[in-house]
Amino acid sequence: MRRVIIDTDTAGDDTIALLTTLHHFKVEGVTITGGNVAFDQEVENALYTIQVASPGERVPVYKGMERPLNAVGMTTHRTVEEVHGKDGMGNAFFDQAVQRPETKHAVDFIIESIRNNPGDIELLAIAPLTNIAMAFQKDPGIIPLIPHVYIMGGTNNSLGNITAAAEYNFWVDPEAANIVLHAGVPITMVGWDMCVDYSVMDEEDHREIEELGTAGSRFFTAVNQVVRQFNKEVHRLPGTTHPDTLLAAIAADASIMTGAHSYYVEVETQGKLTRGYSMVDIHNRSGREPNVRVCESVNRHKFKQTLLRVLSSIE
Amino acid sequence: MRRVIIDTDTAGDDTIALLTTLHHFKVEGVTITGGNVAFDQEVENALYTIQVASPGERVPVYKGMERPLNAVGMTTHRTVEEVHGKDGMGNAFFDQAVQRPETKHAVDFIIESIRNNPGDIELLAIAPLTNIAMAFQKDPGIIPLIPHVYIMGGTNNSLGNITAAAEYNFWVDPEAANIVLHAGVPITMVGWDMCVDYSVMDEEDHREIEELGTAGSRFFTAVNQVVRQFNKEVHRLPGTTHPDTLLAAIAADASIMTGAHSYYVEVETQGKLTRGYSMVDIHNRSGREPNVRVCESVNRHKFKQTLLRVLSSIE
Amino acid sequence: MRRVIIDTDTAGDDTIALLTTLHHFKVEGVTITGGNVAFDQEVENALYTIQVASPGERVPVYKGMERPLNAVGMTTHRTVEEVHGKDGMGNAFFDQAVQRPETKHAVDFIIESIRNNPGDIELLAIAPLTNIAMAFQKDPGIIPLIPHVYIMGGTNNSLGNITAAAEYNFWVDPEAANIVLHAGVPITMVGWDMCVDYSVMDEEDHREIEELGTAGSRFFTAVNQVVRQFNKEVHRLPGTTHPDTLLAAIAADASIMTGAHSYYVEVETQGKLTRGYSMVDIHNRSGREPNVRVCESVNRHKFKQTLLRVLSSIE
Amino acid sequence: MRRVIIDTDTAGDDTIALLTTLHHFKVEGVTITGGNVAFDQEVENALYTIQVASPGERVPVYKGMERPLNAVGMTTHRTVEEVHGKDGMGNAFFDQAVQRPETKHAVDFIIESIRNNPGDIELLAIAPLTNIAMAFQKDPGIIPLIPHVYIMGGTNNSLGNITAAAEYNFWVDPEAANIVLHAGVPITMVGWDMCVDYSVMDEEDHREIEELGTAGSRFFTAVNQVVRQFNKEVHRLPGTTHPDTLLAAIAADASIMTGAHSYYVEVETQGKLTRGYSMVDIHNRSGREPNVRVCESVNRHKFKQTLLRVLSSIE
Repeated sequence: MRRVIIDTDTAGDDTIALLTTLHHFKVEGVTITGGNVAFDQEVENALYTIQVASPGERVPVYKGMERPLNAVGMTTHRTVEEVHGKDGMGNAFFDQAVQRPETKHAVDFIIESIRNNPGDIELLAIAPLTNIAMAFQKDPGIIPLIPHVYIMGGTNNSLGNITAAAEYNFWVDPEAANIVLHAGVPITMVGWDMCVDYSVMDEEDHREIEELGTAGSRFFTAVNQVVRQFNKEVHRLPGTTHPDTLLAAIAADASIMTGAHSYYVEVETQGKLTRGYSMVDIHNRSGREPNVRVCESVNRHKFKQTLLRVLSSIE
Repeated sequence: MRRVIIDTDTAGDDTIALLTTLHHFKVEGVTITGGNVAFDQEVENALYTIQVASPGERVPVYKGMERPLNAVGMTTHRTVEEVHGKDGMGNAFFDQAVQRPETKHAVDFIIESIRNNPGDIELLAIAPLTNIAMAFQKDPGIIPLIPHVYIMGGTNNSLGNITAAAEYNFWVDPEAANIVLHAGVPITMVGWDMCVDYSVMDEEDHREIEELGTAGSRFFTAVNQVVRQFNKEVHRLPGTTHPDTLLAAIAADASIMTGAHSYYVEVETQGKLTRGYSMVDIHNRSGREPNVRVCESVNRHKFKQTLLRVLSSIE
Repeated sequence: MRRVIIDTDTAGDDTIALLTTLHHFKVEGVTITGGNVAFDQEVENALYTIQVASPGERVPVYKGMERPLNAVGMTTHRTVEEVHGKDGMGNAFFDQAVQRPETKHAVDFIIESIRNNPGDIELLAIAPLTNIAMAFQKDPGIIPLIPHVYIMGGTNNSLGNITAAAEYNFWVDPEAANIVLHAGVPITMVGWDMCVDYSVMDEEDHREIEELGTAGSRFFTAVNQVVRQFNKEVHRLPGTTHPDTLLAAIAADASIMTGAHSYYVEVETQGKLTRGYSMVDIHNRSGREPNVRVCESVNRHKFKQTLLRVLSSIE
Repeated sequence: MRRVIIDTDTAGDDTIALLTTLHHFKVEGVTITGGNVAFDQEVENALYTIQVASPGERVPVYKGMERPLNAVGMTTHRTVEEVHGKDGMGNAFFDQAVQRPETKHAVDFIIESIRNNPGDIELLAIAPLTNIAMAFQKDPGIIPLIPHVYIMGGTNNSLGNITAAAEYNFWVDPEAANIVLHAGVPITMVGWDMCVDYSVMDEEDHREIEELGTAGSRFFTAVNQVVRQFNKEVHRLPGTTHPDTLLAAIAADASIMTGAHSYYVEVETQGKLTRGYSMVDIHNRSGREPNVRVCESVNRHKFKQTLLRVLSSIE
């Protein structure tokens, strides 16, 4: 089994991505970055999700950066409870999990895990890239020891989700995104556009999932309550969105990604309207070397089967 | 017949757009802005095109701003002879036209025409928006006297053509674009994405046009020599692109535009990677009032018929 | 007598600078730019000041750009009535002057005057540089025909007056400032720092001026009512400030400027805190060619004598 | 004795500041940030300086961030060997010190020291603020446990040293500077302007120091070889500059600082010309709360006596 660390701002689809990752990989640890909802709530959501996946089994959870790399005292980080519910769990308000987070800082956990297992640990990133960027800055020596980083973030010349120009994860911490994208590590990026095109689960899909009748399917239904409505009203999408689960599924099974090319990708940090915009330079107008493999199409059927299999397996 | 002023940096498809405009409108004047190729060459191209359209008939051509609004002495404005040929006419190197440009400045011509014909003169803009922005800044009083401005520029959450983020006309003068887009005048914007999706003329289309056997069709073939190759190599497009002609056709016949919505549109002026990017805020994440009707789909057949009709009519 | 055009956003010290200019030069015209107070009020202030200087004599006043070069519809230009009084005249609320403004646009007046008198007309600029930049952009051919531009604007590595980083004239229209500073025309810049160091008129100076007992001295006292208080409270300066008069005096008599060097000067347009900041690169860390002669010291006694002489002469 | 951590990019005057700090404080540790010269050279310079100060005594040295907070892979951090010599020690090329650096990361050392000694440890910062900002971001809980941070950085509305607009330490890592300046911790800032006005040691000062005839004075002479020439040529200053020593002296003896006020200070991160510029809002035009006590004048005699005393004491 491949070994991974998954970095998450656990809320909404992060939870299903975490189930998917726990299903397919040996998860060394779950690291939490400030993002979707209140930081401590994210930590609880990760712990609860692990308990859903495998009651009684311990997967350590590490608290990381609560705010973006450059957040200054006066900046209020913007969470998105309107998307994921007040608790980031579709307003399910689950009980607290039994397991508690570790005391080691997520950044140090990442550094030490990679140092101790050179070439063995892949990273799955489904949150703002603050923790991973911090780890790269604190110990650049770990970079060549990482075989691959899978990133849910950005968009490929397409509409953003937090602003018209930007996807949320890159928008929260564009400087961190650039640090990771340009570190020289092999990267696969799955953007918000792939999520919109291939991951939407509509009413019929939801019925199918509910009919699984497992603990997994009930959890899926619960955490997706709020986003279903949000997507309809704001993004005019006919269902729930699963960007993080899509990323985890592609990391687990590359054949789900039916099209991808390597392009030069950089994130805008200076723009007035475009902070967090991901420039995917498809026709190489910049003349820069490609640094990111960008997912361009997905076998939706296969992805959905993966999702169903994961949810079925959780009794 | 509706009365228009057409503002153009005449090269390549600007010429066919000019033929289309002369065919459908009473053209009060043609105003030239610095853009595609050397300014004086643009002026010659406009004069020659008018001669092609109707030998012996005089449509006045006015020289306007040679460089973008904020161009400072040290800035070299970037022309794109690689797209349109050294002469901006597919390297056809036509003879000089008989008609010469007027002495009045384009900006003053625009102001005076509108002042003298309140509510009567529409603007077609197929170049950087420098001339029109200058006219608006010099005499803001003309703004409420303009019934409509049709703009070829920007993209709608899609790949740009001069950079990955930006379309050429908005990129050359993003400040001018913002001035016009936010002036409070009714605007229809037809972006580079519409051009890519609906205006490409492939080998078969070109054969069909050649078979018309008119002066118009021969002119079309000549001026499109260079862009055909450029599009294949750089944009991986299987034919020639006609953004300006599409704009002119839509201005002439609104039914060619099968889909359009009003959105808040603003152009990025501060970005490091994104200067000239047009934010089309489809889901209104900014909460700003719509200011632009954005073309979202086109009846390609009808557009092509318009093009064929124009080229046929020029004997 | 040397011939000049003076460009002014007439309010407060602009008026005394205008008196000084009318005293020393043949003034071809006074051009008005949007700046200190409401545009139409500025026009009236210029007309009234001309009437004070020489009742019955006509010096034409031309209305120019009401807003900065890049002002978009939504931008509210910031005037500073708190500095100069509601009327820009120290709340003196003078009667309307008899003379009315011309109909020709200031930008066209500047272009035509220079075209018709190549090498003969110097420019004095004591307002945002919008009009002059527009003239340079509309007809770059005038640039080599201008012997000198004297500019009140910017600061030399010193505290600003509208923000900590920026002086008002450059801050209102930094793009215009850059266009003029980099046009390749000989320039002398007198910054806000020179004003603070050498032009402040304290209580004793004001008494001395009042004792002149002329119409000129009474006018001076009246228009300086508000700024005296403003300077004490905001800038902690013990008197009234005369940046524009200092500029006019130096233009008239170069020996008032006791120190000056040529440096590379550029204005910040992109900064979050520093928009309008004037970088005066004294130690040439940028390696760029000098483009501006920057005033670094003033013979205050001589300047004050000039001021007294001007005010005495207006009976 | 007050307890401090000193953060330094040890080269040139950092060494004399380190001697000064070791003389007056109990130094818990020396932390190294990427700045003046190659990172490993800085580490050696700190170790050697400690050996000069007190041979045989161990003061731990911790390696920290080698590059600025936001440095991306492609960025080459700019060192300034032209100021301080190839070795950062005036080209003295000293032998390697016996003591070696610690293995703990500087950021963790800072966090743990403060956590273990709440309210007891002051910080002296004479380098880019990367290490301290990282510590604040990794563990914001330490901020209220720090009694004071003394910072050499920025300028107060005055000429910069690396660009016309910016002082080197803030310019290298302006985002880190903002994080620290706005953290809510009590701060004293001593800028480059204070260094220029009060710390320059001219030929006569240098002779006086040489005549001390101590190991300290010989070390001082050696490390200042290169900067003496650099200051003459580039900054036109008649001697060596001692910004860091001035900071350390003020931290040790507040009476050396004869004037200071609290102002709102923020560092420009977005400017094209002004990145790293420190806005010291003396007249509070921004309306923001003061966050930094800014040194505005110095008792030069007292400062020099402190320097002489430190150098005398090192036999």
